[in-house]
Amino acid sequence: MTSPVPPYTAVIFSSRRTDVDGGYAETADRMVELAAEQPGFLGVESARGGDGFGLTVSYWRSAADARAWKQVAEHLVAQQRGIAEWYAGYQVRIATVEREYGPGIG
Amino acid sequence: MTSPVPPYTAVIFSSRRTDVDGGYAETADRMVELAAEQPGFLGVESARGGDGFGLTVSYWRSAADARAWKQVAEHLVAQQRGIAEWYAGYQVRIATVEREYGPGIG
Repeated sequence: MTSPVPPYTAVIFSSRRTDVDGGYAETADRMVELAAEQPGFLGVESARGGDGFGLTVSYWRSAADARAWKQVAEHLVAQQRGIAEWYAGYQVRIATVEREYGPGIG
Repeated sequence: MTSPVPPYTAVIFSSRRTDVDGGYAETADRMVELAAEQPGFLGVESARGGDGFGLTVSYWRSAADARAWKQVAEHLVAQQRGIAEWYAGYQVRIATVEREYGPGIG
């Protein structure tokens, strides 16, 4: 993503997948699409390895914007399915990005 | 990782790999080992998908601990090789984790 000027909010979502697949990829794609429509959305980055462990970091203008995204109805439904079916474990960390450097991702 | 009590520091490293492989996996493993020996190290999580995009988040007791790790000699050498050979693009974000929730990664 094009990087904004700090400070801004990062939500670090760490997870390990179960082997249940029904609807996962479609929901993940839809959540990216839906997040991008929310106020204060700055970007999202995601990676998952062959071992089922994944990291998704979404970036927001403020902690209030990130909190509002958590409460979007369609997202709440996805979170419940995630907990029930798709994730063997997860952790969510809300952080303030203070500074950054690098050439960016081409 | 066993999650510490916030606030603590997260270093979010986003990268896209080149197709150059020589020594990459060995160096990545060695950096995890070396990081774990540093003062203030709390843990590290990493994932890379088949598209070459990866996220590594290392967690530190303080921003000063994270800064000291950046300056460890063997790590500086690895960073230079990374820039020259292994990464087509990257971004580093230093953030303060303010709060977190979840059952953790089993």
